[in-house]
Amino acid sequence: MPSATRRSGPDMRFPIAAFLLLLITMPFGPARAEDGYDLWLRYRPMEAAALAQYRPAAMGIVAEGTSPTLNAARDELLQGLSGLLDKRIASGAVADGAVVIGTPASSPQVAGLKLPLTALGPEGYLIRSVSLGGHPVTVIAANSDIGVLYGSFAFLRLIQTRQALARLDIASKPDIQIRALDHWDNLDGTIERGYAGHSIFDWHKIPDYMDPRYTVLARADASVGINAISLNNVSADAWMLSPLYIDKVAALAAVMRPYGIKVYVAARFSAPMEIGKLKTADPADPQVQAWWKQEADSIYRLIPDFGGFVVKANSEGQPGPRDYGKSQAEGANVIADALKPHGGTVFWRAFVYSEKDATDRAKQAYNEFKPQDGVFHDNVFVQTKNGAIDFQPREPVHPLFGAMPRTNLALEVQLTKEYLGFATHLVYLPVLWKEVLDWDTLAKGKGSTVARIIDGSLEGHARSAMVGVSNVGDDRNWSGSIFNQADWYGFGRMAWDLKISPEQIGREWLGMTFDNDPGFATAMIPLMMASREAVVDYMTPLGLHHLMATNSHYGPGPWVSDLSRPEWNPVYYHRADARGVGFDRTPSGSDATSQYAPPIAKLFAGPDIPEKFLLWFQHVAWDHKMKSGRTLWDELVVHYDTGIATVGQMRRSWDAAKPHVDSERWAQTAAFLAIQEKEARWWRDACIAYFETFSHMPMPAGHAAPPHDVAYYKAVYLPYAPGAPGVTSSPFKNTPKDPPKDLPVP
Amino acid sequence: MPSATRRSGPDMRFPIAAFLLLLITMPFGPARAEDGYDLWLRYRPMEAAALAQYRPAAMGIVAEGTSPTLNAARDELLQGLSGLLDKRIASGAVADGAVVIGTPASSPQVAGLKLPLTALGPEGYLIRSVSLGGHPVTVIAANSDIGVLYGSFAFLRLIQTRQALARLDIASKPDIQIRALDHWDNLDGTIERGYAGHSIFDWHKIPDYMDPRYTVLARADASVGINAISLNNVSADAWMLSPLYIDKVAALAAVMRPYGIKVYVAARFSAPMEIGKLKTADPADPQVQAWWKQEADSIYRLIPDFGGFVVKANSEGQPGPRDYGKSQAEGANVIADALKPHGGTVFWRAFVYSEKDATDRAKQAYNEFKPQDGVFHDNVFVQTKNGAIDFQPREPVHPLFGAMPRTNLALEVQLTKEYLGFATHLVYLPVLWKEVLDWDTLAKGKGSTVARIIDGSLEGHARSAMVGVSNVGDDRNWSGSIFNQADWYGFGRMAWDLKISPEQIGREWLGMTFDNDPGFATAMIPLMMASREAVVDYMTPLGLHHLMATNSHYGPGPWVSDLSRPEWNPVYYHRADARGVGFDRTPSGSDATSQYAPPIAKLFAGPDIPEKFLLWFQHVAWDHKMKSGRTLWDELVVHYDTGIATVGQMRRSWDAAKPHVDSERWAQTAAFLAIQEKEARWWRDACIAYFETFSHMPMPAGHAAPPHDVAYYKAVYLPYAPGAPGVTSSPFKNTPKDPPKDLPVP
Repeated sequence: MPSATRRSGPDMRFPIAAFLLLLITMPFGPARAEDGYDLWLRYRPMEAAALAQYRPAAMGIVAEGTSPTLNAARDELLQGLSGLLDKRIASGAVADGAVVIGTPASSPQVAGLKLPLTALGPEGYLIRSVSLGGHPVTVIAANSDIGVLYGSFAFLRLIQTRQALARLDIASKPDIQIRALDHWDNLDGTIERGYAGHSIFDWHKIPDYMDPRYTVLARADASVGINAISLNNVSADAWMLSPLYIDKVAALAAVMRPYGIKVYVAARFSAPMEIGKLKTADPADPQVQAWWKQEADSIYRLIPDFGGFVVKANSEGQPGPRDYGKSQAEGANVIADALKPHGGTVFWRAFVYSEKDATDRAKQAYNEFKPQDGVFHDNVFVQTKNGAIDFQPREPVHPLFGAMPRTNLALEVQLTKEYLGFATHLVYLPVLWKEVLDWDTLAKGKGSTVARIIDGSLEGHARSAMVGVSNVGDDRNWSGSIFNQADWYGFGRMAWDLKISPEQIGREWLGMTFDNDPGFATAMIPLMMASREAVVDYMTPLGLHHLMATNSHYGPGPWVSDLSRPEWNPVYYHRADARGVGFDRTPSGSDATSQYAPPIAKLFAGPDIPEKFLLWFQHVAWDHKMKSGRTLWDELVVHYDTGIATVGQMRRSWDAAKPHVDSERWAQTAAFLAIQEKEARWWRDACIAYFETFSHMPMPAGHAAPPHDVAYYKAVYLPYAPGAPGVTSSPFKNTPKDPPKDLPVP
Repeated sequence: MPSATRRSGPDMRFPIAAFLLLLITMPFGPARAEDGYDLWLRYRPMEAAALAQYRPAAMGIVAEGTSPTLNAARDELLQGLSGLLDKRIASGAVADGAVVIGTPASSPQVAGLKLPLTALGPEGYLIRSVSLGGHPVTVIAANSDIGVLYGSFAFLRLIQTRQALARLDIASKPDIQIRALDHWDNLDGTIERGYAGHSIFDWHKIPDYMDPRYTVLARADASVGINAISLNNVSADAWMLSPLYIDKVAALAAVMRPYGIKVYVAARFSAPMEIGKLKTADPADPQVQAWWKQEADSIYRLIPDFGGFVVKANSEGQPGPRDYGKSQAEGANVIADALKPHGGTVFWRAFVYSEKDATDRAKQAYNEFKPQDGVFHDNVFVQTKNGAIDFQPREPVHPLFGAMPRTNLALEVQLTKEYLGFATHLVYLPVLWKEVLDWDTLAKGKGSTVARIIDGSLEGHARSAMVGVSNVGDDRNWSGSIFNQADWYGFGRMAWDLKISPEQIGREWLGMTFDNDPGFATAMIPLMMASREAVVDYMTPLGLHHLMATNSHYGPGPWVSDLSRPEWNPVYYHRADARGVGFDRTPSGSDATSQYAPPIAKLFAGPDIPEKFLLWFQHVAWDHKMKSGRTLWDELVVHYDTGIATVGQMRRSWDAAKPHVDSERWAQTAAFLAIQEKEARWWRDACIAYFETFSHMPMPAGHAAPPHDVAYYKAVYLPYAPGAPGVTSSPFKNTPKDPPKDLPVP
């Protein structure tokens, strides 16, 4: 055997020998760096003490029956256990310490155990320590092959996080049926608001060449229970529905299928014209209806388990039913009806605001969608962002939650970090999502949480979905930073189990990704938990929002006031003036508060509003006395500085974590935290310098004034910030627009 | 120590023990795939028989003195030898089998040997078996630290390719002084004509985060002697010269510096206006001259060893001195004079053709530049593509070679494969370059080869340079395919040694990249050597050229005739009509032949023209009798089919190579070869179907007619082909331009 294959097939070189432990020289060559590619599926050998404890509990795999999904489960266990236990684990017969996997249908051994599987549903699993033919074994059982795969990943997780394997009796099933990630990838390889490189999907070579990374993507998604992905930007390209591209979609669906992942595509509403050559895309037109039906039929011929379409209609320039005087529901239902015979689903996005409507942007989606409650067909989800503006560091929950009881509502959150510092800022998002899920809308009295709305239990809906905007790109570490992987991991874990805590997710992820040392987690969990409030503090404290620079959304731009549409300007949102700052959304203002349940509406419009939402809903005097006793102005400054101080503490925590992390991943994270602190100061200094031009108040004692005046910060221009393809790049390509001669860089 | 560091620091876990060989359990976890990331620097353990032979010849490293470059040499040897010899190699004192590295200045041991180093020049090296203090050792010596690094890579190459280490006496120095790669990377991350993903340079995060890949890039370049890189697209963005970006350039220069690589940037000629806020970029304007001087001064303050500028002026829309009625030389000299005090260089590209000049495009660069011979200042290179059109599968050599004896001429070749099938076609480019280097211009009589022109020896020039357009992107395998790495490897080897054969380069690369089995090389070298003629045959046989689809340059488009500029249309180049095909460039036509030395001009204009250039220079009747006895039409068809047959043979050779290659790299290459064969048929069928509409001749016996008529091939439209940023993507984004309903895909 040539040396070229030395590393990739060591287990083939050494047939089973007489010795219990096979001793060979370890290669001394360049060790592959820990570059984050392996995500939380690293499967590195456990510490020696743990090996002795865990090896007897996983001596081999018993996998009866075969299917692509069962094979994936078996292979994952073989690979994972061999790595973790640092010995070759094989498939075989029942013996002491075996891990027996299967469904009653696939495995007579599992069937014979007569396990209580019914309540687990189609995706749940059971992991139980049992005796089989006199042998103590662990069984991983489910009603379906995919349940077995999920159980296998859960079993590996137990070992990866050093949980006890004795007397296991774990039953788990998902709270949410469709746990989806939307990739906002353009067909030219750019990613809208993507900060982890370019698209992982190499459309040009698909289907002729299928990159092995697609399979790793499927494994990673399945390992945390994600069972749906949408492949392209919601600002959709009609080409995606052409036969050329549907062939490519089918090839990706084939990769995803064994891992229980259904593929969706974002559909452009006007595709009946662009691809179908019709004169209209009016949903009332019979030819249009026939086109969607024929399109769906032809897709399902190639992809029998195709998920369906995600549609962004009449939003930010996208075509939609309103172009023809039809309602959002009329548009959604035509497409839904085409998918219905095949079991497909439409995710119809509620992220709309009109270029003609002068109503407070925060109110528009509610105004447009609430009257249509009950009109959407049952295979439609109205996919609603967690807040009414757009993925700000903190938003009050979207008022549509609780307002559409007769509609399937899907929650959309982001993993990519638009408005949150992009790839380099460490902001642990499960904290934000948990705040959203636990939000009590009071729609049907106390306990009407967002979690109970989206899982269907509050209104008795049969369908449920939670959607994340993916943070995956072709960066080697997949998500742009190592800690961004925690958001991917956490999204899947939380969509499966709405009650899981961010701390629990964090502990799992830290152990699987870095080190199971308890002291490490003790130091890191506070860092992760604090990171979300930090970004609120240093970017948009006390309910401020939408203060970022234009187009790129990179860095501060609270002064921007010259964009053509009023609601694109930060000044529209903060409304700073000589008296104070904040958007009056009380009944004396835009009255957005009235879109919430009456007790919440009253709270948000009154003096007892939680201060974290203060400036979102109220215009407040600069000298207003806060609960702390400080003036609003002083409190703002304190929050900005608290945010920076928190990042400083995060940096020190990370410095102390060096013994627990390999050098490459440590260094990258350290460099990113330094960027985060620098940019936190940039946000703080720019915003304080700007708001001071209204407040004219002195800095509170102990807080330094910004080193420059606001003109300095306004002049900062950084071209080519990532994630805004065709916006930051094109206009300045070759013809920089008035670049300052000595560009001030913060 | 936590398990997280297990793989990355094995040598730290085991202090020197009493046992000669340290035996430990090998990790059984998931082996990292052979994904091509390690290039030809894989350093995998040698086969057992070789270990016994090679270990005694490299027992340890003796490295006296330190410098960043000497440290890089020592570290590369330690890493490489430890990997290859599968044992820990350390630095230490002289002993039997030591490898002693250094310069007389850095190392008393080396100085004491009084080696004949003078003739090696500033970059050459000597590798010699000597006795030192009674110990047999190998010494790697040079006049400079960088020579030591080059020698260290050469020593590793000897082992990687299983050359004997006994009685070594190797002296080597480069034939060319500046061995440069130009990256055509845009600041927004796209790459002009790049087919290996997006830019490896993450400008947004530089200098705050320096990706470890930049260091690997430096190692790979240095390992083959590349000593200059230009960082950005020659269609340059003025931002590159802003202080913001020069800071980033400086950070990359710091990474490259220890590896002997000077950094250049492509400069936009109008930058004095865009960055400098001047009213003009007229090279005669004193303010413009002062601006360039001040710009150069400020760059050199940050980057004392900055290489200089690459300039594409008055070409394809770029600004240049002609905008002000000034000559190319006047433009180049102003910039050169600004660089001169710092030792910097201007690469002034000769790739120009005018939008107003109706002269045969093939003649224009010669017409514009030849009259300026002797006018360019001595730190200017006129950087000239190998052919007068643009990187076609085969072109006659550019007539400027031999025509500018008083000018420094640099040869520009491409590694990226525009017009050559992009990443997925296996076309081994050193074959093409060798054909160019060996071309005898007869400028000063027989032996006036391009090699002797660019190395300066023909005219006694003191400066020499060879430039490649890089094929590196952020694809995991760097170059878009494994075999494309051979072009990167080969460019460096050939620029160092103009006489090296493509076969020799191929053998080295195959051994370092895959396997040293002689049978493997015996099978692979013919594949690689045949690959270049294959692409000529299936795309543009017998001197045809520029037949590709518009914008993307992907796939055939010989019928295109509607572009605004005549020389953008394939019909301009092939001139097919009822009588025949080919561009009459004889004196009865455009008279481009007269730009060559008289004997060549006569040959190309006459009946004895080599048939491989026939249709480049002559319009030939379809029934013209070729040397084979066939008609031109039949000969064309035979060439097309020969090209396809060669690719078929390449596929079979690769199938047979499976035992020598790991599964991942084998599978990717196999998939790419399948794409290549499919697309070779597409080219053949489309071109034959099209040309048949002129020739009206039947297919020769045994050759099948294309399965479709020409209308079918014309209708093929594949959006988003890579490498043409802003062209393929933008116009069709969201609004596909008339996509056929059922898109024919070949």
